[in-house]
Amino acid sequence: LEYSSRTLELLIEALCRLPGIGAKSAQRIALHLIQEGKGEAEQLAQAILDLHNKVSSCSICFNLTEEDPCAICRDPKRDESRICVLEEPKDLLAIERTGIFRGKYHVLGGVLSPLDGIGESHLHIQELMKRMHPGISEIIIATNPTVEGELTAAYLARLLKPLSVKVTRIARGIPYGGSLEFNDMVTLSKAMEGRLEVES
Amino acid sequence: LEYSSRTLELLIEALCRLPGIGAKSAQRIALHLIQEGKGEAEQLAQAILDLHNKVSSCSICFNLTEEDPCAICRDPKRDESRICVLEEPKDLLAIERTGIFRGKYHVLGGVLSPLDGIGESHLHIQELMKRMHPGISEIIIATNPTVEGELTAAYLARLLKPLSVKVTRIARGIPYGGSLEFNDMVTLSKAMEGRLEVES
Repeated sequence: LEYSSRTLELLIEALCRLPGIGAKSAQRIALHLIQEGKGEAEQLAQAILDLHNKVSSCSICFNLTEEDPCAICRDPKRDESRICVLEEPKDLLAIERTGIFRGKYHVLGGVLSPLDGIGESHLHIQELMKRMHPGISEIIIATNPTVEGELTAAYLARLLKPLSVKVTRIARGIPYGGSLEFNDMVTLSKAMEGRLEVES
Repeated sequence: LEYSSRTLELLIEALCRLPGIGAKSAQRIALHLIQEGKGEAEQLAQAILDLHNKVSSCSICFNLTEEDPCAICRDPKRDESRICVLEEPKDLLAIERTGIFRGKYHVLGGVLSPLDGIGESHLHIQELMKRMHPGISEIIIATNPTVEGELTAAYLARLLKPLSVKVTRIARGIPYGGSLEFNDMVTLSKAMEGRLEVES
């Protein structure tokens, strides 16, 4: 826009690069930050700057943390014999939110993707192998049920097999509250394959 | 969340206070800012900090600007005889984007709202009156067609009447591309009232 402020434009451009923020939301947020007073804007800017200064990866599980090792790796109450393997920190947050899993985690930092040139060395797979010891009873592979996620799961399962540890995969099927007709063929096939006997 | 980073939580909280950002988007943005590297995060933080340091209100029209008076008030090519009166800077941006208006602006900084205790003294109404001089031929009142916007428009029209200046109000009616049946009764009534003779 011919007459608008360069500072405002730069902020709107920076906001547009964030996921899920379009041009209109970016403008609304920028104008909100002007109108709300300096305090709120400075607080937000500081929180963004703190991110890279204070938050880093746990050297054991690669979860995001301010202290190394992270709180989960340090917690003696968590079951050390089970490790849940995930793609990204956001997946860890999603599982933690359910409260159902009380073991440890391992964040791969992505998935194998031969087409994008992402191989084993780009992920924290060797670090997972180093964590393996006789006390570990189960590795739960919780990568996403995508082509790459399944490929990564299969690769890890093959790698872990010689260690004679139980390797499991999170269930794939119809989402809770979903309906059969709105699920794609692959989901339906996997749901059929993964059927369990109903206990009476 | 029990194990999450305090720094991350603070950022997610700050992002949630922005308009249109919910808990899920805030988390996605925060994780994006960690993964994208320090450069992008610092750029965004700096753009937010610059906002209050560099951008302020034009002392003539109260548009947002980095120089006072703003580029529109300084521009000799803009028609000085017409002033378009608006609620907020975002309304000015919306009209500028159409390119249809080449006069000057006056941003009120809100609308009269007796229930919220917002009276004449809270808006830049006196400053508008001081801008009035015999060279001004038209005041276009472009407050929003809400209860408060209409109240403010009526108030301004009454205030400007003794100055024998032409006071106009932007047209209210069916939005372009809209259909009659999906518009509320007030919009339809105003569209009927505001009907114009079709030129042949």
